[in-house]
Amino acid sequence: MILKRNGSQASVKGPDEWFTGSVRLDPIHPRPQEPSRLTSALVTFEPGARTNWHRHPLGQLLIVTSGRGWTQCEGEERVEINAGDTIWCPPGHKHWHGATTTTGMSHIAIQEMLDGKNVEWLEPVADAEYGA
Amino acid sequence: MILKRNGSQASVKGPDEWFTGSVRLDPIHPRPQEPSRLTSALVTFEPGARTNWHRHPLGQLLIVTSGRGWTQCEGEERVEINAGDTIWCPPGHKHWHGATTTTGMSHIAIQEMLDGKNVEWLEPVADAEYGA
Repeated sequence: MILKRNGSQASVKGPDEWFTGSVRLDPIHPRPQEPSRLTSALVTFEPGARTNWHRHPLGQLLIVTSGRGWTQCEGEERVEINAGDTIWCPPGHKHWHGATTTTGMSHIAIQEMLDGKNVEWLEPVADAEYGA
Repeated sequence: MILKRNGSQASVKGPDEWFTGSVRLDPIHPRPQEPSRLTSALVTFEPGARTNWHRHPLGQLLIVTSGRGWTQCEGEERVEINAGDTIWCPPGHKHWHGATTTTGMSHIAIQEMLDGKNVEWLEPVADAEYGA
């Protein structure tokens, strides 16, 4: 059993290469314990902050734990997400997620590792796309 | 994208074959979307309630979201777990988890499916083991 106590894993600033705006990453389960493929983190977006466009090789489960945000899959409308909502994004699907312009949002993100990768980062979400 | 709104999935009573005491299961992601193996639920234990002994074929990640509880791996001491703690239980490892005698506890449970199973249920945790 690996028991990680609340507060024992330092928060990390979301890197500018992956995010727009102020994002905090709180590790939950950073590396899979093979043969498991599971990884997880809590991600907190300040108002206006969002991920870059990106894909997950085996998909991603989001559990919104507080606030209100937005998410969008390529070719679809942006949708509002609120605390308690859950979102499954299929493998290889290009998407982004983040806060709204006026409200922060936190979600637990769960994704499975494939060949050492659980995400492929792409271009930033332009202000026009984000606010659309 | 599969978006499940807060409140859109009915709560389920934890079956007596799997649990002792009053347990509520709130589905998060009940069935894996292949090739993903991921499944998840929120589990809420009233004081005195706990799982049976059980094993997970690919392990289990627990994220304690509220309250205080106990967990135990076979052959180890029972440990206290609190909101914000995370617990990784390795594949095939026999364990149980639940509330304390005086406090409720909720956790998000995440486990991967292998050959159509994500858990093997075993015998109840006797009062003497639970209270030890």
